[in-house]
Amino acid sequence: MFTLEELEIPIVQAPMGGGPSTPELAAAVSEAGGLGFLAAGYKSPDAVREDIAALRGLTGRPFGVNVFAPPGPEAARGVVEEYARTIDGDLGTPRHDDDAWADKLALVASEGVPVVSFTFGCPTPEEIAALRAGGCTVWVTVTTAAEATAAVQGGADALVVQGAEAGGHRGTWDDAQPGDIGLLALLQVVRAAAGGVPLVATGGVATGAAVAAVLAAGAAAAQIGTALMLAPEAATSPAHRDAIGAGDAPTALTRAYTGRTARGIVNEFMRAHDADAPSAYPDVHHLTQPLRAAARERGDADNFHLWAGQAYALASAEPAGDFVRRLAAEAREALDAAVRRLG
Amino acid sequence: MFTLEELEIPIVQAPMGGGPSTPELAAAVSEAGGLGFLAAGYKSPDAVREDIAALRGLTGRPFGVNVFAPPGPEAARGVVEEYARTIDGDLGTPRHDDDAWADKLALVASEGVPVVSFTFGCPTPEEIAALRAGGCTVWVTVTTAAEATAAVQGGADALVVQGAEAGGHRGTWDDAQPGDIGLLALLQVVRAAAGGVPLVATGGVATGAAVAAVLAAGAAAAQIGTALMLAPEAATSPAHRDAIGAGDAPTALTRAYTGRTARGIVNEFMRAHDADAPSAYPDVHHLTQPLRAAARERGDADNFHLWAGQAYALASAEPAGDFVRRLAAEAREALDAAVRRLG
Repeated sequence: MFTLEELEIPIVQAPMGGGPSTPELAAAVSEAGGLGFLAAGYKSPDAVREDIAALRGLTGRPFGVNVFAPPGPEAARGVVEEYARTIDGDLGTPRHDDDAWADKLALVASEGVPVVSFTFGCPTPEEIAALRAGGCTVWVTVTTAAEATAAVQGGADALVVQGAEAGGHRGTWDDAQPGDIGLLALLQVVRAAAGGVPLVATGGVATGAAVAAVLAAGAAAAQIGTALMLAPEAATSPAHRDAIGAGDAPTALTRAYTGRTARGIVNEFMRAHDADAPSAYPDVHHLTQPLRAAARERGDADNFHLWAGQAYALASAEPAGDFVRRLAAEAREALDAAVRRLG
Repeated sequence: MFTLEELEIPIVQAPMGGGPSTPELAAAVSEAGGLGFLAAGYKSPDAVREDIAALRGLTGRPFGVNVFAPPGPEAARGVVEEYARTIDGDLGTPRHDDDAWADKLALVASEGVPVVSFTFGCPTPEEIAALRAGGCTVWVTVTTAAEATAAVQGGADALVVQGAEAGGHRGTWDDAQPGDIGLLALLQVVRAAAGGVPLVATGGVATGAAVAAVLAAGAAAAQIGTALMLAPEAATSPAHRDAIGAGDAPTALTRAYTGRTARGIVNEFMRAHDADAPSAYPDVHHLTQPLRAAARERGDADNFHLWAGQAYALASAEPAGDFVRRLAAEAREALDAAVRRLG
């Protein structure tokens, strides 16, 4: 079974669903001594199987696959339709599906994926046992101390501690009960609750100094997403790359694009629809999907989700392996400087 | 002139206006080797002068005084009155004052206060020059990279980098343009913008591991507020102590109590009035002041502001000096462990 101590460099690539994550990006991070990740969310089990095969063709090193836990109950009747009436453009058909949960669990277990991480909730003890039997280590994303306690009791091998700085979807288990806690505060309260279970810290980590900081705060590794979105190995769309590269607009949390709280660069669609957006995931994701795909295709950055964390201005266009190695070196320097400061 | 390198322990006590900060708390932190702070906000210049004299009677070590920068323009006519109509109970008379800005600047300069920090904005170059002439080092609170750039250009000697985790008022210069950035993300983007000006990191820092983390992230010191609110030297009210000690309710940002965004433990008044509260500071502060004072007096924790940062569950009831020394020792251990992890 994989453990975090195996990593030469305690840096984990964040799974970035909906495009940016590729087998090439994951392979580059794993080959550099970190841990690469694939994002199973929104993909068919066959597509995930192909990604795993492609990644295994590029590296023999450990890697992870992230799976979205099933959503909560469907929103009240009419809520999504009401939201749809406020949006102009080519909309899709909302549906309340579970993103092929059972098939994806079976797939990652049968593939013996070294690390399987979960967002939006925790698998059952039976599901975790089946993953373990397949050779998978199980990580669960948490955003509050209460979720951390529940994940540890549920049998998680490690916790992905996601601060409110993070880009993309909040991993919050119940979208209606947000706990938008900053990473450093969250690491402290989760550590007090987690009873020694290893922590992977994520949310706005973009520099070696921040990697050093989360290790000092007690994390076993840092997980980095947005800062890798400009890497040549990432499949980030051109308009999204431009928005990240500009680096000057604020980010905000919104349900406007998917019906579930996520952080992105503030743009026109977000400003127009945030106030009306219901908590109704993945229904709203399916509703807005064609509109977003078309905007992305035509390079219209005001009408698709520009997921980005709060330190996105520091994203690097270096090859991912170079970036990971540089951050590790800078993290060592940062710790040395801090040791000198404390005396 | 005071510099942060003088501190034996790189821990600064946060000024906590409206009660908790006392000369005794500041003296205990300064005597332990950190930097104690007085809060001038809401106090008359005479009361601040008395606090400074009392503190100087307790310690010969350096200390700081925090001053609120003048508020922005008054809210539109009728906005505060409209909010007042939604609140039951004994209300005060709203007014748009500057908290005796000029008199307080003159006072701290004439007293030669070693460190004068500012919240809600940056003094003018002339005001900074007058403070320097009085022997004061000038710190400016920032919550975005843009505020950091402006403060450095304005002549600040150091920046207090306030993450969104922090309890009490956000230091944001324009309350209508919030930049609710988590501390670790903010430290990275501010450091890139601040050109080597020393940073004091604040917001949810409650443990030695978090002190170590902000030093690793490049801060020259950590500033700690909420974690000291249970100290015997703090004048935190009994009902507020109980709410912090319970440690289980979430916190949120709200303008409900003062007309300016601040973080506190969620309670009934906040839930009832958050949605209606305008950005109108300090007008709303004066409006709700009698109601809050009465609630605090009768121990009614649902009807006054329970300011607290996101790591408030980790606040300590130790004497402040013991707490500061313990955190410094734990910070050293945390850095040693991180160095071992990075290899």
